[in-house]
Parts: sequence; structure tokens; C-alpha cells
Amino acid sequence: MRKLSLFIAASLDGYIAKTKDDLSFLKLVEKEGEDYGYAEFMANIDTIILGRRTYDYVLKETGSSHYDNGQRDIYVITRSERASVGRTVFYSGNLTDLVQRLKSENGKNIYCDGGAEVINELLNNNLIDEFIISVIPILVGNGTRLFKDSRPEQQLELLNVKTFDTGLTQLHYKRVKNDRNNN
Amino acid sequence: MRKLSLFIAASLDGYIAKTKDDLSFLKLVEKEGEDYGYAEFMANIDTIILGRRTYDYVLKETGSSHYDNGQRDIYVITRSERASVGRTVFYSGNLTDLVQRLKSENGKNIYCDGGAEVINELLNNNLIDEFIISVIPILVGNGTRLFKDSRPEQQLELLNVKTFDTGLTQLHYKRVKNDRNNN
Repeated sequence: MRKLSLFIAASLDGYIAKTKDDLSFLKLVEKEGEDYGYAEFMANIDTIILGRRTYDYVLKETGSSHYDNGQRDIYVITRSERASVGRTVFYSGNLTDLVQRLKSENGKNIYCDGGAEVINELLNNNLIDEFIISVIPILVGNGTRLFKDSRPEQQLELLNVKTFDTGLTQLHYKRVKNDRNNN
Repeated sequence: MRKLSLFIAASLDGYIAKTKDDLSFLKLVEKEGEDYGYAEFMANIDTIILGRRTYDYVLKETGSSHYDNGQRDIYVITRSERASVGRTVFYSGNLTDLVQRLKSENGKNIYCDGGAEVINELLNNNLIDEFIISVIPILVGNGTRLFKDSRPEQQLELLNVKTFDTGLTQLHYKRVKNDRNNN
């Protein structure tokens, strides 16, 4: 079955952004020619799920070609309906239904590209199968947490840890299937 | 100068205890003969700082000999005064003053043994020099966070990462001294 994976950077204190969507701390680990395994990871992904705010942010910062390039199916989770653009679908239905349908179909793996709201809804329903978390060597002190309070417990299996000379540590876990909730 | 160190376990989602001080998730990584470097770390410690609630918890769970064994100076941070017991001092003054005094004295290193309130007051004043964080392979979902919101930014240098076959990953950082606040 297709996996749903997270591939995300967070500060040691667990934030994926400082207040006001400030991502400048990621510059600490920017290094020419070092993508921390992103291209290799993306080679096995044909579907991306992300929140509408994250989508709009990336479009503003990076341009529409980052997602709307015809290479992958993009599902933008939103409360307001919008017409599709190429392979980019604006989805306002139930997130769990979408993920369960996608997982049941054939294809490469599925990548959740944030933001925290979508990630935590997926966590609340035990839908994330693989966690690749790049820990940035900083305490940013405040901002948007990767893990919000009040989620179900989820046991993990450590698959791999990579360290980089920039001080980034990449932790790779998979979800341990839980008999209690049958997934 | 003496260092103030943190040596603590947290779930991947950043909790040091589940709600109601439940530490049972630590059992996931318990292994006969494996102390994850604790004895080696403690060999360089002659002073422990900890919060009163943590002290009482350990006394109840482990017995008074864990701290009150005459081997180290113990500072229990509390709001209510209490008479010293051997080398255990109940300290109700300013925490920053205490740490600055201890750091200026000769001796081995200083260990903050929790809880979250004392740790975060130390973080708020950029007083922790070394972070040894053992990441337990679980999302516990809720509880007491190691890092509370609204602390100052603190850049870190990654010193070392150790992995263990129980799935525990130990991250070791030191504080990068910050010209801005002169410490």
C-alpha cells in the first residue's frame, strides 16, 4: 500500500516556523549542493497533500511552478471550493476520506507538505506512515509547532538517523501499526 | 567555567511526561545494562538543580537516597522555605542569581534534573550550556512539554548524535554564545 510521508524541518524545540511564518532559521543549514535527501525522497512521490495557506505561501515565495508543474497530483486542502488547475485539485471534503482513497489506489507514495493544521489532522487520525524530520540546531523560542497538543499516542520505529556537518540531524521513523485502532 | 547541562528524555513530539506525570513511555527504551550514558554524564556533575515537584516525585517513586546521599549538592527550587537536609538545600531565591553564583564557583558541572518549569526559567535566561536530549520513538500526544512557548531564540551547535538499538536517539548540543546578550 502507498505510504503517506512527512518530510519536514523543525527546530530542536519543535517549531516549523517562527511567529509570522518566519522560516529564516532554515538558512542556518543552507548549503550549496546539499538538499538533505529531498530529491531522492521526492523521486518516490507522485502525490502531494498540503494546506491552502502553505500552498499560497509557496506560490508567493517560490512561484506557481513549484506545485503546478504537471509532475504530480497536488491536493490543496481548503474550506472554500476552487476550480482545479492542471493536476492541482482544491479539496474541501473530508481529509481522512481523501487519504484513505489515495492509499487504496495504485501509485508512488504520498507526501504531506504541511502546514501544521493538515499535519495534525492527519496525526489525529493516525494516517502518517513515515516521518522524516530534519532537526535544525536552534531553539527558535516560539511559533508554529509541528506537533500540537491533544493527539492520540502513536508508537514509532526508528529506521535511520543521518547527521550533516551543518548540524542538521535527520530522524527517520515509521509508524508502528496499532492493533487497538486497526490501522 | 562550570557548565549547566540538561540530560533528559523526551518523546519525538517533545513531551517529558504524559498528562498526570505519566512517565510510562520511558519503559519503551528500558534495557538491562543500558543507561544511555547517564553514569558517565553524572561522573562530571557535583551539583544538581531541580524543581520542588520533581524532587517530591522522585522521593515518592525512588526514595530519598536518590538525591539525599551526600554525594552532591542538591538545590531544590521552591517557593516555600524549608530547612536543609544534609547537602540538600531548599532554595526560594532568584534562580538566575543562584546559577550565576554556582557557575562562578569552582567545581564539576551542574545538572538541571527538571521539571519543565525550572528548565524553562533557565532557558528564558539563556543559562543552559549543554543539551543532551534522548528522543524516545513515540508520539505521546499530550502532556508536559520540554520546551514551552515564548522563550528567547538560542542558536546551538551539534556536538554528537548517538543511536541505540532500542530506537532511542541521543542528541547532544552546546549553546552558541550570543554576542547580543553577552553570555
